[in-house]
Amino acid sequence: MIAVLRLGHRITRDKRITTHVALVARSFGADTIYITTKDSTLEHTISSICQRFGGEFSIHTGVKAKTLLSQWKGTIVHLTMYGEPFETVLPTLNRKKDILIIIGSEKVPFYYYDIADYNVAVGNQPHSEVAALALFLDRYTTGTWQTQKFKGELEIIPSKKGKHVKSR
Amino acid sequence: MIAVLRLGHRITRDKRITTHVALVARSFGADTIYITTKDSTLEHTISSICQRFGGEFSIHTGVKAKTLLSQWKGTIVHLTMYGEPFETVLPTLNRKKDILIIIGSEKVPFYYYDIADYNVAVGNQPHSEVAALALFLDRYTTGTWQTQKFKGELEIIPSKKGKHVKSR
Repeated sequence: MIAVLRLGHRITRDKRITTHVALVARSFGADTIYITTKDSTLEHTISSICQRFGGEFSIHTGVKAKTLLSQWKGTIVHLTMYGEPFETVLPTLNRKKDILIIIGSEKVPFYYYDIADYNVAVGNQPHSEVAALALFLDRYTTGTWQTQKFKGELEIIPSKKGKHVKSR
Repeated sequence: MIAVLRLGHRITRDKRITTHVALVARSFGADTIYITTKDSTLEHTISSICQRFGGEFSIHTGVKAKTLLSQWKGTIVHLTMYGEPFETVLPTLNRKKDILIIIGSEKVPFYYYDIADYNVAVGNQPHSEVAALALFLDRYTTGTWQTQKFKGELEIIPSKKGKHVKSR
């Protein structure tokens, strides 16, 4: 199981970024996302995309991070630009275990650096938690997200020009 | 030269997403970003990060997209979930040419699908232009963004726990 934990989501300010984080989690092979702030609109947005485009992805908001982390049996990875290079850490991860990937927002308390088994950087330059999650999942899944079948009501057929959408 | 063209940036709504797009462009090896809406605050934010963290990245806002595209001598790639798989297109690109990567926001007019040499999908699921740009640049630069030296005033030193920042 691949899970993502999004910390410190602020409903107004982070609305679009957290939506992107959740959609990236779904598209790049995660099974679920936990968000610490309760946000029914966000739940609805993501569930609606899952319904139309398929897959088994789930979203849970209003989750208590410390409870989740203290009960987590698998690996905990915290994505931060201060961490160790992801290409160094990835080969050491046991893929048979469940993994929980923590994504911060602004200031992340030291507690999360401490509880994580690995603090992992996707580059040590400031960029985006959306990009960091996408790159980490791309490597973690060894690119298998590209061939995943979502079997939704809607399926996009790759095209040289324009939009080709198949409805079931 | 690697350039990014961000279409349809809405100052309030897209503030954080466009900031992430620009920072991803910089971190993953692009040289410049063009943004069609004039936004001095965004210019200031990105220039300030470039000043502190280094590199030669530049930002231009209030750019006329059609003028830029009509004068562009290199390859034009439009990232869209409706396009052809990026892993199929990437090996066919001539890396000696300059490349302009178009990133849309909501509805992208057909003009851009038409003028692009390639409409390229980073997966055919809805996710994020931030993630799509990061993945495309990661593959286009064959991962060399990871060893790029930015030589800024601030440099982050990778750490197992906590934050280690070196100031020059």
